[in-house]
Amino acid sequence: MIEVGIVGGTGYTGMELLRLLAGHPQVRVRAITSRGNAGTAVDDMFPSLRGHLDLQFTAPDAETLGRCDLVFFATPNGTAMQMVPELLEAGTRVVDLGADFRLKDLPTWSQWYGMEHACPDVVEQAVYGLPELNREAIRGARVVANPGCYPTAVILGYLPLLEQKLVDASFLVADCKSGVSGAGRKAQVHTLLCEANENFKAYGAPGHRHLPEIRQGLAQIQGSDVGLTFVPHLVPMTRGMQGTLYARLTGQANLQELYERRYAAESFVDVLPPGSHPETRTVRGTNMCRIAVHRPADGDTALVLSVIDNLTKGAASQAVQNMNLMLGLEETAGLQQIAVLP
Amino acid sequence: MIEVGIVGGTGYTGMELLRLLAGHPQVRVRAITSRGNAGTAVDDMFPSLRGHLDLQFTAPDAETLGRCDLVFFATPNGTAMQMVPELLEAGTRVVDLGADFRLKDLPTWSQWYGMEHACPDVVEQAVYGLPELNREAIRGARVVANPGCYPTAVILGYLPLLEQKLVDASFLVADCKSGVSGAGRKAQVHTLLCEANENFKAYGAPGHRHLPEIRQGLAQIQGSDVGLTFVPHLVPMTRGMQGTLYARLTGQANLQELYERRYAAESFVDVLPPGSHPETRTVRGTNMCRIAVHRPADGDTALVLSVIDNLTKGAASQAVQNMNLMLGLEETAGLQQIAVLP
Amino acid sequence: MIEVGIVGGTGYTGMELLRLLAGHPQVRVRAITSRGNAGTAVDDMFPSLRGHLDLQFTAPDAETLGRCDLVFFATPNGTAMQMVPELLEAGTRVVDLGADFRLKDLPTWSQWYGMEHACPDVVEQAVYGLPELNREAIRGARVVANPGCYPTAVILGYLPLLEQKLVDASFLVADCKSGVSGAGRKAQVHTLLCEANENFKAYGAPGHRHLPEIRQGLAQIQGSDVGLTFVPHLVPMTRGMQGTLYARLTGQANLQELYERRYAAESFVDVLPPGSHPETRTVRGTNMCRIAVHRPADGDTALVLSVIDNLTKGAASQAVQNMNLMLGLEETAGLQQIAVLP
Amino acid sequence: MIEVGIVGGTGYTGMELLRLLAGHPQVRVRAITSRGNAGTAVDDMFPSLRGHLDLQFTAPDAETLGRCDLVFFATPNGTAMQMVPELLEAGTRVVDLGADFRLKDLPTWSQWYGMEHACPDVVEQAVYGLPELNREAIRGARVVANPGCYPTAVILGYLPLLEQKLVDASFLVADCKSGVSGAGRKAQVHTLLCEANENFKAYGAPGHRHLPEIRQGLAQIQGSDVGLTFVPHLVPMTRGMQGTLYARLTGQANLQELYERRYAAESFVDVLPPGSHPETRTVRGTNMCRIAVHRPADGDTALVLSVIDNLTKGAASQAVQNMNLMLGLEETAGLQQIAVLP
Repeated sequence: MIEVGIVGGTGYTGMELLRLLAGHPQVRVRAITSRGNAGTAVDDMFPSLRGHLDLQFTAPDAETLGRCDLVFFATPNGTAMQMVPELLEAGTRVVDLGADFRLKDLPTWSQWYGMEHACPDVVEQAVYGLPELNREAIRGARVVANPGCYPTAVILGYLPLLEQKLVDASFLVADCKSGVSGAGRKAQVHTLLCEANENFKAYGAPGHRHLPEIRQGLAQIQGSDVGLTFVPHLVPMTRGMQGTLYARLTGQANLQELYERRYAAESFVDVLPPGSHPETRTVRGTNMCRIAVHRPADGDTALVLSVIDNLTKGAASQAVQNMNLMLGLEETAGLQQIAVLP
Repeated sequence: MIEVGIVGGTGYTGMELLRLLAGHPQVRVRAITSRGNAGTAVDDMFPSLRGHLDLQFTAPDAETLGRCDLVFFATPNGTAMQMVPELLEAGTRVVDLGADFRLKDLPTWSQWYGMEHACPDVVEQAVYGLPELNREAIRGARVVANPGCYPTAVILGYLPLLEQKLVDASFLVADCKSGVSGAGRKAQVHTLLCEANENFKAYGAPGHRHLPEIRQGLAQIQGSDVGLTFVPHLVPMTRGMQGTLYARLTGQANLQELYERRYAAESFVDVLPPGSHPETRTVRGTNMCRIAVHRPADGDTALVLSVIDNLTKGAASQAVQNMNLMLGLEETAGLQQIAVLP
Repeated sequence: MIEVGIVGGTGYTGMELLRLLAGHPQVRVRAITSRGNAGTAVDDMFPSLRGHLDLQFTAPDAETLGRCDLVFFATPNGTAMQMVPELLEAGTRVVDLGADFRLKDLPTWSQWYGMEHACPDVVEQAVYGLPELNREAIRGARVVANPGCYPTAVILGYLPLLEQKLVDASFLVADCKSGVSGAGRKAQVHTLLCEANENFKAYGAPGHRHLPEIRQGLAQIQGSDVGLTFVPHLVPMTRGMQGTLYARLTGQANLQELYERRYAAESFVDVLPPGSHPETRTVRGTNMCRIAVHRPADGDTALVLSVIDNLTKGAASQAVQNMNLMLGLEETAGLQQIAVLP
Repeated sequence: MIEVGIVGGTGYTGMELLRLLAGHPQVRVRAITSRGNAGTAVDDMFPSLRGHLDLQFTAPDAETLGRCDLVFFATPNGTAMQMVPELLEAGTRVVDLGADFRLKDLPTWSQWYGMEHACPDVVEQAVYGLPELNREAIRGARVVANPGCYPTAVILGYLPLLEQKLVDASFLVADCKSGVSGAGRKAQVHTLLCEANENFKAYGAPGHRHLPEIRQGLAQIQGSDVGLTFVPHLVPMTRGMQGTLYARLTGQANLQELYERRYAAESFVDVLPPGSHPETRTVRGTNMCRIAVHRPADGDTALVLSVIDNLTKGAASQAVQNMNLMLGLEETAGLQQIAVLP
């Protein structure tokens, strides 16, 4: 049995890691840490796990974590970079669900995250964990930077278009919508039910931390910088994310065929039939990204609708997918859930 | 591989049967019927099943269904009773998720369901499929009447109290609350999002079809008729059900111990620690019933909080549990899902 | 123009007072206080008020408040009792939306609110502000204790039955349900959208602060102590509250007639036709209490369904109704809104 | 007192007209028609109106309607055009909340609405009822085509930019989101709470009826055809609509000043301070459009966030605003509601 640790287990991505790993056939959670809740039984805090997981929160402890085959960080930004070097030395692999290792350009990172980076060398070796883009590198990686939720939905949506250089990459518009769980489990006024329910709004229009991450990913695909307007919105629901992606076509292509071909071998990207509109609920709790591609009125606009669950493909289940790759397991192991509908 | 059929697969309980059976290790769905959608691929109607189930709806056909080991009826009341006798003759077992075989007293049945019963003899042999009450009879049954959602939550909640004759059974109050999916997937004004959202109301206060079913179940346990006031309410959410159950204590007992002991061997009833309040979301999509028992202010009122998911333990997963028992499979097979939270 | 002040204007009841008073024909808000937000324009914090109210939050200041005709306290429990004596001396009337003056029995108050009372003499002269019960006393009051939301719904629901001594008052069951706004606007994990949405649960089953308040009100009506089991539940919606009230009938009466007669002259209690189920959305944002009364299966149980909006009739609009009475205005002034549906 | 009629009063826009007109100081609803519900009291169907409106539904009758000063049509598309000519002859003014008179180009109308137009001459004289664009013409109109909800949000959002010819009008992107009430009150599966709740999706990506209407409006402003990609989405809430509007700047301007100046005299368009994100809940139930304008990263993209309530400014209250103009009343009469928050 492979043994893993989770640092920071009391937020939503930590909860989801627990659910997924409790059902993973080859993995056992050896330790889950939470300074504030050390000694509390995990299923006291999360009663949905009663009967599925017999574990207590512990204080983070490098020795215990260092004995794990792999450690997930589900911590606030800036935490993982303090502990990762020591774990790497102990031979443990790491998947960071935070943003510490996502941006290669450190001044950009510092500008958006407001601190100096603690281990630039680890940033250098870290692999951006989007398997559909970087699968082979992930297999060999010791540190994987698990992508943000918006970047996952947007990069997977634009990928075939940019790979084929079919659009004007200087004016891309990514209008994105997220359920409220993207804001995490901390107590805040603006995510109270009474504030977020029966309401819709944009946020971060002047700038959002996921913008440089998306631009980095798209630039890798396109081979050059892209011009991107990215506007996130808050949807009054718990989970689910859609990227509605616009681009002006510069070349000719059968977009439906292009997308189907590109993702034919991918287990977790599902290209819908022509004329479809993916629904976020169909991917709830799963590792699936569902995509539909349109060309409205047969004009020169490519329109891509890309949906994921922000907490799974946008965080925890993608982290498990990365773990599977890093440890040589079946890529889909533990990730075959069907969304619960309605 | 055991082969099963589903009659009436386009409603919510049919959808849930598909999800659960697609993940069941020993069962294959051979046929799913829908007159109106014959020829349609199941995953065209339910895209969440894409990649998990390769099946088309077919018109109901006694021969095909008769070759199944077991057939589930997820049909409107009054449909199953027309087809079941023929299937029984063909040697097929039946689980009816509707109400055709739930009430032993046929005049009462006719009064509440507004029709004559088509096969009184099948009613006689049918077993009421609440495993925690009738497990052995279910194992040997050829027809199981799968309980209604409210009856499941209420009977499991009162069971230990009535078995021990600890309360005044002439004045029981079951104040129940259900998510909107209990009303099914048919187009109706009062279950539109705009009608049911941000709203709370009682319904059926003058009388509800589940009342005689609950009274029949409680009378079986108590050994005599009970006086029950049952008021259902509609909660603005998709899934989940709570019975808040009140009774006046006539005897002495440690209620916590009583409940823990009674359900110690049950895989799908979870008695919470003293002082708890079960949450419907912790059982979402699962076969679990979570119960807390209180005695407010140490007075003479027993208060039981009993939650289930109305579509799973209240319908589809309980049907699978019954199937497991009827076919000699592990009772928990295919039913170990963890609720997706948040 | 009458001038009023609001102490503690940044919570939900403060917001609602602002909305209602901005539309009141005879009243002007002179001051609204918030220590933490002094200097902020009210409509910066609450953009829905843009164009309707030109006011800034100020630090609480006894002199300014003392020049108001009436001051509302929309503050945490324990705050009003520190400031009220000084305001009374200045000749200002007070409506406290908190609990400081609701319970006449001070030891009980201290037990539930965890502090000593600062001004027992003011408690003595304070009038419990349920106009349908205490209208004349309110007219003459200098301090009104505005009722809690649950007490409003429950007392109005039981009132006609207890006035007529028609039920066994030793075993009353009030099963109550509230929208999440009852928990206020402070940042807390359990009222986050992601925690409260698509979920239903009871809370406070072992005991809730509104229990002694309800019992005090019912005892006033009945003329003796009552036995009450009160269980509140959290409904996944912002506003709205229902009390589902059960009692065992001991006398004979036409309940429908009784309720219609009792409330015929009340502007804000609406008894629905026989067989009805009131919906919380029909009272949203209004001062109305809608009631239906049933006798299920013509048995000996009286069932009352009583709905209010917890933030208006359960708090802010009832406070305005009390203000109208105290200041000799038309009781319905500023309170004629129609609920916005759907 | 001015007398008005409403044809088709049982849908959401009809309900909203009733609410608004019941509170209008100078108007009385003389007749509200519904073939299917003739004889039913309005407040039996809509209990929120109990005590506010004493009226029964009647069968539509040209004579009664013809005696009204103005008649609103809140009917399915294709109904108004059958009755309007007769009413105009009787001297009655008309506001059609449907689409019968919105498009000047009749072949386009027929293509999108699937029928021949019954009265092309009335189309010709009809005025498109967006007061911020066509106020003077509305004052003199006998027939006003009340705009669709998406067109209202989008046209008001783009108006200042196009008037000043500041953007590349050949590539506009309007990413729009609507609450579910936009789909009306008819029973449909896809708008059931269980289908629409906790879900997000685009719809109509290949083409939507509001596209030609928006293009017609924008072309009027720009003075020439525009290239527009319009993608609507369904948000899991009852009310509210946002247009997130993108355009590539070709000229220089201070966008904030431009918007503030353009709308300075408008009672129902509120330009928010720089850096804002309007929330749909702040306009709920009101006639307000709230707009914020951004230029992300000081680049060449203009980003406009425009929110309305789809049932009020997007339908019923804009119809009342048009009525006020047509009848020479104060434009804001009966339209001063404050949104109920939270």
